[in-house]
Amino acid sequence: MKTLIINGTVINATGTAQADVLIEDETVVALFSPGSQEVAAEKVIDAAGKYVIPGGIDAHTHMQMPFGGTNASDTFETGTRAAAWGGTTTIIDFAIQKQGERVQDGLETWHQLAAGNCAIDYSFHQIIGGVDDDSLKAMESLADEGVTSYKMFMAYPGVFYADDAQILRAMQKARELGLMTMMHAENGPAIDVLAEQLAAQGKTAPYYHGIARAWQMEEEATHRAIMLADLTDAPLYIVHMSAKQAVEQVAWARDKAKNVFGETCPQYLYLSLEKQLGATSEEWGDFEAAKWVCSTPLRSEQDGHLEAMWQGLRTNDLQMVSTDHCPFCMKDQKELGKDDFRAIPNGIGSVEHRVDLLYQGVVDGRISLPRWVELISTTPARMFGMYGKKGVIQPGADADIVIYDPKGRTSIGVDKTHHMNMDYSAWEGFEIDGHVDLTLSRGKVLVEDGEYHGLKSHGQFVKRGLSQYLI
Amino acid sequence: MKTLIINGTVINATGTAQADVLIEDETVVALFSPGSQEVAAEKVIDAAGKYVIPGGIDAHTHMQMPFGGTNASDTFETGTRAAAWGGTTTIIDFAIQKQGERVQDGLETWHQLAAGNCAIDYSFHQIIGGVDDDSLKAMESLADEGVTSYKMFMAYPGVFYADDAQILRAMQKARELGLMTMMHAENGPAIDVLAEQLAAQGKTAPYYHGIARAWQMEEEATHRAIMLADLTDAPLYIVHMSAKQAVEQVAWARDKAKNVFGETCPQYLYLSLEKQLGATSEEWGDFEAAKWVCSTPLRSEQDGHLEAMWQGLRTNDLQMVSTDHCPFCMKDQKELGKDDFRAIPNGIGSVEHRVDLLYQGVVDGRISLPRWVELISTTPARMFGMYGKKGVIQPGADADIVIYDPKGRTSIGVDKTHHMNMDYSAWEGFEIDGHVDLTLSRGKVLVEDGEYHGLKSHGQFVKRGLSQYLI
Amino acid sequence: MKTLIINGTVINATGTAQADVLIEDETVVALFSPGSQEVAAEKVIDAAGKYVIPGGIDAHTHMQMPFGGTNASDTFETGTRAAAWGGTTTIIDFAIQKQGERVQDGLETWHQLAAGNCAIDYSFHQIIGGVDDDSLKAMESLADEGVTSYKMFMAYPGVFYADDAQILRAMQKARELGLMTMMHAENGPAIDVLAEQLAAQGKTAPYYHGIARAWQMEEEATHRAIMLADLTDAPLYIVHMSAKQAVEQVAWARDKAKNVFGETCPQYLYLSLEKQLGATSEEWGDFEAAKWVCSTPLRSEQDGHLEAMWQGLRTNDLQMVSTDHCPFCMKDQKELGKDDFRAIPNGIGSVEHRVDLLYQGVVDGRISLPRWVELISTTPARMFGMYGKKGVIQPGADADIVIYDPKGRTSIGVDKTHHMNMDYSAWEGFEIDGHVDLTLSRGKVLVEDGEYHGLKSHGQFVKRGLSQYLI
Amino acid sequence: MKTLIINGTVINATGTAQADVLIEDETVVALFSPGSQEVAAEKVIDAAGKYVIPGGIDAHTHMQMPFGGTNASDTFETGTRAAAWGGTTTIIDFAIQKQGERVQDGLETWHQLAAGNCAIDYSFHQIIGGVDDDSLKAMESLADEGVTSYKMFMAYPGVFYADDAQILRAMQKARELGLMTMMHAENGPAIDVLAEQLAAQGKTAPYYHGIARAWQMEEEATHRAIMLADLTDAPLYIVHMSAKQAVEQVAWARDKAKNVFGETCPQYLYLSLEKQLGATSEEWGDFEAAKWVCSTPLRSEQDGHLEAMWQGLRTNDLQMVSTDHCPFCMKDQKELGKDDFRAIPNGIGSVEHRVDLLYQGVVDGRISLPRWVELISTTPARMFGMYGKKGVIQPGADADIVIYDPKGRTSIGVDKTHHMNMDYSAWEGFEIDGHVDLTLSRGKVLVEDGEYHGLKSHGQFVKRGLSQYLI
Repeated sequence: MKTLIINGTVINATGTAQADVLIEDETVVALFSPGSQEVAAEKVIDAAGKYVIPGGIDAHTHMQMPFGGTNASDTFETGTRAAAWGGTTTIIDFAIQKQGERVQDGLETWHQLAAGNCAIDYSFHQIIGGVDDDSLKAMESLADEGVTSYKMFMAYPGVFYADDAQILRAMQKARELGLMTMMHAENGPAIDVLAEQLAAQGKTAPYYHGIARAWQMEEEATHRAIMLADLTDAPLYIVHMSAKQAVEQVAWARDKAKNVFGETCPQYLYLSLEKQLGATSEEWGDFEAAKWVCSTPLRSEQDGHLEAMWQGLRTNDLQMVSTDHCPFCMKDQKELGKDDFRAIPNGIGSVEHRVDLLYQGVVDGRISLPRWVELISTTPARMFGMYGKKGVIQPGADADIVIYDPKGRTSIGVDKTHHMNMDYSAWEGFEIDGHVDLTLSRGKVLVEDGEYHGLKSHGQFVKRGLSQYLI
Repeated sequence: MKTLIINGTVINATGTAQADVLIEDETVVALFSPGSQEVAAEKVIDAAGKYVIPGGIDAHTHMQMPFGGTNASDTFETGTRAAAWGGTTTIIDFAIQKQGERVQDGLETWHQLAAGNCAIDYSFHQIIGGVDDDSLKAMESLADEGVTSYKMFMAYPGVFYADDAQILRAMQKARELGLMTMMHAENGPAIDVLAEQLAAQGKTAPYYHGIARAWQMEEEATHRAIMLADLTDAPLYIVHMSAKQAVEQVAWARDKAKNVFGETCPQYLYLSLEKQLGATSEEWGDFEAAKWVCSTPLRSEQDGHLEAMWQGLRTNDLQMVSTDHCPFCMKDQKELGKDDFRAIPNGIGSVEHRVDLLYQGVVDGRISLPRWVELISTTPARMFGMYGKKGVIQPGADADIVIYDPKGRTSIGVDKTHHMNMDYSAWEGFEIDGHVDLTLSRGKVLVEDGEYHGLKSHGQFVKRGLSQYLI
Repeated sequence: MKTLIINGTVINATGTAQADVLIEDETVVALFSPGSQEVAAEKVIDAAGKYVIPGGIDAHTHMQMPFGGTNASDTFETGTRAAAWGGTTTIIDFAIQKQGERVQDGLETWHQLAAGNCAIDYSFHQIIGGVDDDSLKAMESLADEGVTSYKMFMAYPGVFYADDAQILRAMQKARELGLMTMMHAENGPAIDVLAEQLAAQGKTAPYYHGIARAWQMEEEATHRAIMLADLTDAPLYIVHMSAKQAVEQVAWARDKAKNVFGETCPQYLYLSLEKQLGATSEEWGDFEAAKWVCSTPLRSEQDGHLEAMWQGLRTNDLQMVSTDHCPFCMKDQKELGKDDFRAIPNGIGSVEHRVDLLYQGVVDGRISLPRWVELISTTPARMFGMYGKKGVIQPGADADIVIYDPKGRTSIGVDKTHHMNMDYSAWEGFEIDGHVDLTLSRGKVLVEDGEYHGLKSHGQFVKRGLSQYLI
Repeated sequence: MKTLIINGTVINATGTAQADVLIEDETVVALFSPGSQEVAAEKVIDAAGKYVIPGGIDAHTHMQMPFGGTNASDTFETGTRAAAWGGTTTIIDFAIQKQGERVQDGLETWHQLAAGNCAIDYSFHQIIGGVDDDSLKAMESLADEGVTSYKMFMAYPGVFYADDAQILRAMQKARELGLMTMMHAENGPAIDVLAEQLAAQGKTAPYYHGIARAWQMEEEATHRAIMLADLTDAPLYIVHMSAKQAVEQVAWARDKAKNVFGETCPQYLYLSLEKQLGATSEEWGDFEAAKWVCSTPLRSEQDGHLEAMWQGLRTNDLQMVSTDHCPFCMKDQKELGKDDFRAIPNGIGSVEHRVDLLYQGVVDGRISLPRWVELISTTPARMFGMYGKKGVIQPGADADIVIYDPKGRTSIGVDKTHHMNMDYSAWEGFEIDGHVDLTLSRGKVLVEDGEYHGLKSHGQFVKRGLSQYLI
């Protein structure tokens, strides 16, 4: 089966090319100058006036994740379908191990949850929620399983929290194995004191979630993680950064050539403490703001945090934008924290909109076209050991390709484009000056002409190699 | 005429691909998975076990440049031939205007010097050695001529020197036109005082060239250029950086998202004040060191300057490595300064060795393979508006391609590989763990199997667009 | 003649003491615990409830300075009388040498202007407006004359401007002699281009003075001066700093233990681009703003410059607050620039109000009481080689003492307290929560009970030693 | 009883004065110009050619402290006597509370240990080794008891360790009360992992104490403490700093005007990882190095840590030099760790030598004379709320005075000047170019002409006020 994409502008991380793309079955086999080769194909896609880009890679999702007594509302099935709608063709989700559990059991469980249920390809990072001799030993087989990155939490004492002794030991092991350490960098013990004090003062509305999780405690944990990485010579990847001062710490480390990387999320680029966390509606009152309760929290726009995230993307002190997709419905889920923000399940759903929201940055003059592709696809592939197969349109690559229409338009909202399993959209009312016209995953059309053609049996597990950013 | 490169590993700035490359006449028309397409070609190049890379772009050369009463010893003919031997397929040389001269006359003169004499493609930056109303006006037509960058000097009072008022006015104009400002950032007036004082003390040996040109005066000028660029909102490119503290200034500017770029040269990565500027030989005595008199000067290895240049390449605070190729023979040329280092023509010849010297950085674990290609080809193309045509192997690109053998070996020395018109090599005795096996320029084989097949009529002038790093 | 000050709180730079102060003739001879000694005195001053502080030292004044075709409106007589009213008992004014003039002639001229005309003690810094072999040679005798500091200008091309070669040579000489280099750090050549462009656009109102003198050009010059000082190992004192980013450069240098010092002025602590330079009145229209035309200019409060000056005083990145007192009347003087801000004589008069304006910083919680005394008296004395004689109340010190009433109140305005020879006050309407009750200069009462008792023959020239900050 | 000190040079923190000092009983009552007053005194001390300085204040000692199963070998009696010999007239020791104990009980215990046993005045900081509701409540009465500072430990899990939640709560309380938070800033949990790993590898010699306590973990904890202080707006004082990078963190905080202070100790100025921790002797073999096992550890001289401490004293990023006096004998005490460095009691004894060791910095040109006095006496007094009574020679101050002979000489060694109760000297062989000739404490001669005249009943508890650095 041959598919041919003609007349489009292929965009990769360094620039553009006028090239036709030939796909055989699941794989790109050739790029050629339009008209230079005679090629017959069963399916021909005309991309005239459109961008032909490698499919988005969302390196941070939590499908059906158990959290706070409930589960993230998107299953692998609903979540990956929504991703496909939005031009994302690979996700990296998180398998979970907790204190007292076996790492391989956690990984196996997540394999079972995902296998046969994904519209697009998927891979796993491993959460090590309980560092001890057993889990450290178990890390040794992760790379062989294609899981070359793992995550620890400096937040959530009693749940995922790792103390500094544990972090040190895990980083030493990761250094030995070549694994990438991912870190949720917030000082949890301190934040929990602040949250408890606010609650004791009757400040229980969702807004106070943003107050309790002070930027100082993100900055602090970021610095601490950097120094533990420095001590162990381990590479480090800080997830979901939102505080300007935390990014300054990453910049400081990178200026010294330390292997420290930073990820932000669309919500930290567009949504704010003032506007969203301060939101109230007729229906929900000040609990409306629960829609945007996530950790790290939305930050103050007026204090410059949002602008700093965009700047970080320009300076490359932030290398990636993932979603931290972890959706919960207001009904029955977010509502758990009606009387106390500490009980609100933390998370926002964006897996469907990341490619669009970043393209808006191109339209707004904040990033260049090649940088857009680098952020949404090429760097995630390189960072997490999939480049060549993913993250680029070149011979031999998986035919994960999106046709993007720069003259199109995307209106986000529950009653419009919204395929995530949520009863609200965190992005209600956002209008994007661009549109995902067609999504291919390993040569298979998932979305075309506003129709969904995907199958939940299509997506495959991607065994990843070591980070290609460190070679 | 079709040429086919098979079985090689194509390397670009973000990673590698197993792909065959099809060239029609002067242009790459297709990349495809080995064996996937049936293609007939007049010439087939087997690159099994080899790297297939875009030809090197040396963005800073001074062929036959008049300086200090003599001319750089390589003509466009000899210099571009040497470049081809070393895997460089494009140079950007400098057309010169001085105070009282017309800019377009300078450009025309250089066109005449180069046209019909180049083995490889060439382009020009414009030196504006005399900023006044006329030259500012003349800048307006440069972009139309394909000259989208110009250079000023904060050094060399009485020759090329521009004062801060002139720099400010030129940057304002450049900002308006989209031109890239290139800056020789050394505080010339201060350096000349130091040089004069040293000479007055009888310290006339070449070594004192390095003492007079103190790092503080490179750091200072770098900062000054950055602030003038900040004031005018003009992008800025600092040439031939060698001082650690100057690179720190560039890093500082880039951390604030200013459009400031930095270039270093192979000599600042490998050669030092202690070793080369301190050299003495039986033949030349302490005048031996004149071989390595260039500006900015070689710096102290012990003070960390060399290591800082490599670090800058890793942190991307330095984006490019050009040669500042400006060769002079010892005989009759460098000898002009036998009694006074101030009369030594400033310059080192490296156009032949840049691709190899940087590859050694890959072998030594200092940079990655994709970073190598990015440094020697992709970034120069993007920085100076040639990407797509140059700097990448993709459909539509000029077939400027080098077959590089990672198992090969290159011994540098006057009696070995040395095609530059110099009576010594600044790199005598250097051994590289790699080898340029074949050089193609617009589809034409220039070097193959150790034989030169180039023609001085082959090279064409490249009209450049605006910098693609700013879009 | 004995004078005794009883019951007061003596404040020095590190704290307070309850102590009576005994003066014999011109000198403090004893401090003792109240009541501990039996002392007879011709004059007893009861300072109960008051502060007893060393007299203010204003290290930067320009009495009757020729500038822009006119002279500063305060003579040594009127200016020092106003100073006495405001609690300042020593000024350091500037003797001027220009290109082609002899340094000693300039100094002699200023001696003649001041001698016999000063109400308080005075000293001189030497302006070296023309660095050449003669003036460098002349610097060698300055220290013997008690002039241990000299000033250069990076601004005002054609008037006082020194280029970098000149600055380098002067700093080398100063390093050899132990003299303090004072620097007006603004990039004059660049600023003049901007000013000319604004004028050419018809932007001739005083407001544009503040636009032309962009903060970038203060920051730049500050950095340049620091690096020239680093190169020559000379101590450096930057005068009248107003830009936040320039202070950051001083902080950067001081963090590296460089001997770099910074001075700001009351106008940069309280007055702004928005309010004062943007002022218009019925009488003057937008030319009202000419009252506050000084260089460096008033800066934007909204951009944080004013707050940064206060912060610099707290972090000790700024060590001193002088006035740069250089008053001009609106009538006939400032009016010279009615049609072009470039012709407005630059300067503000504040010599009378510095002690009060800084005390307001104590009231407002910005600085501590000891820091107040350190800023207005002790540090100036140490910085410029007068400590022991001036800047402290201790046995052997000149009896330059101010009785300050923290419960008093000072209303500033032309019709209120205003003894400077100006037809307006730059501080009209300012209300201070404190009051200079009594001023003693070398034991002589100059101001008491709102009456002036000074004599223009009283003030003496102070021969200064080398800076005590460097010992 | 009147004592008169004549002909000396009085030095305070800003400069010198030629002044005679009159003492009545315990208090300075007057300073006067030599010969200006007729004064009769029972005792006249001729200080011609000598310095008259306020007695040293050592703000960090641990007399007879229980640690690691033994007690610091100096009692309050022996330790304060040694202090007197060395020109120190006040110590601030640490009362200890641990988890489960009552704060007031700890304080009471230390009062009982010290009362009637001290040769010089003493005060207490309070160690809060167990932060909980009770101890937080107990902090409220500390200021009334004259204990206005308390200390927490980020090191020593299971002993004194406070986690971040505890630190946050204590700092909030301290902010409310105006108390100074003192911090032992090392990441104990991480260090303990490293120490355990080294021991498991058989690296049990004292040298590995220095390896385990990596500078990264001091830097990290310093930053963390700063951010917790920033969050709570509490002032912060970091004790016994030794890592260059940790001082850089303090500098960074101070540049932003945060109330962060840093203390180093003589051992970090003079002793090193290479020399002392690498020491071996015939008697002790490599266990010799146990003499210098203290925490933070001695650092590498070659990596610039020692030089950085001196630089910090010059830049005022370090404000104080205390001893952290905590002596243990080799015999029976240090020997506890013969087989495992982790069992070596941590501590060095220096209370006798601090004034001399810092004076050597004056002789060596590292600090000025006034800075010497500021470091050893004035700043400690201001920092910890004793200024006026201590830290300065002025009317009303306690007559704690040292006559220091700049032409004297002090040889340190067990068989020479050594009055501390230790069987070795950490400073054996040090030669100082100066000498403590006479020590007065509240008017009483303790040391004179090489004779000791002190009484253990002399020293009194000093109730301290809030830090005068924050007012």
